[in-house]
Amino acid sequence: MSEHELRVSKIRNGTVIDHVTGGQALNVLAILGIDGASGESVSIGMNVPSDRLGKKDIVKVEDRELSQSEVDVLSLIAPEATINIVRDYEVVDKLRVERPEVVTGVLSCPNRNCITQGNEPVASKFDVVADGVRCSYCGEIVREDIAAHLDVA
Amino acid sequence: MSEHELRVSKIRNGTVIDHVTGGQALNVLAILGIDGASGESVSIGMNVPSDRLGKKDIVKVEDRELSQSEVDVLSLIAPEATINIVRDYEVVDKLRVERPEVVTGVLSCPNRNCITQGNEPVASKFDVVADGVRCSYCGEIVREDIAAHLDVA
Repeated sequence: MSEHELRVSKIRNGTVIDHVTGGQALNVLAILGIDGASGESVSIGMNVPSDRLGKKDIVKVEDRELSQSEVDVLSLIAPEATINIVRDYEVVDKLRVERPEVVTGVLSCPNRNCITQGNEPVASKFDVVADGVRCSYCGEIVREDIAAHLDVA
Repeated sequence: MSEHELRVSKIRNGTVIDHVTGGQALNVLAILGIDGASGESVSIGMNVPSDRLGKKDIVKVEDRELSQSEVDVLSLIAPEATINIVRDYEVVDKLRVERPEVVTGVLSCPNRNCITQGNEPVASKFDVVADGVRCSYCGEIVREDIAAHLDVA
């Protein structure tokens, strides 16, 4: 039973992102800039049964150790995520996602008149507020479905 | 070793799409309309070592048996894919992707003046030709990177 529940096998080296909100795995990949094209070995389990979350996603990225700042952006879509850094099949570091104060260049402002939406060389920048994120340039607030505004195509 | 190479564990019921061209797993999900939001259990291995393909992707969709016509569209991006229908951990049917003659409603025509790109209620339709696909309406041909024209957002 437990073998069947594992879904995605252990990795030798890399980062295991566990307890991702169910159905958010593809958005995790988008935030991390992973689409498979550059040959990264990645395993994903979507909507795996979880005692804690009901259903969860899990993402294992081989041969890449994510930094605290990289994983903190994940808190916007997967606030319960836990991060394990793995070397030679052993967990050598555990991180928790922490809500960042500012998110730069990951989200796209939904306000079409925002300077970041024009042809100016201005990267998007959002302040993380209690109930969402607020564009640092135009003040537009994104509260729900932040993943829909991922600017990572 | 073989256990570590499996990457994605066996499923009880559903469809296993194996020998997918390396890096194309997310496009397979897009074609099948799977983004995790509707709660489907899906396991994915990206860029797994493969004797035959060098690197391959594998997608396991639980509790859903894909039909021949559903998998045929996958031939456009994963011509070597093999499909196993699984019931109670046993393979009960094997399918191969076959190049369809026509693809309807999956791809988006890159010609901005094409009628399918306007506000008309016209679904996209492409004839599959030797070196790509040709829009049945305007004749525009897409040869390379067909995945970039997936109309499945």
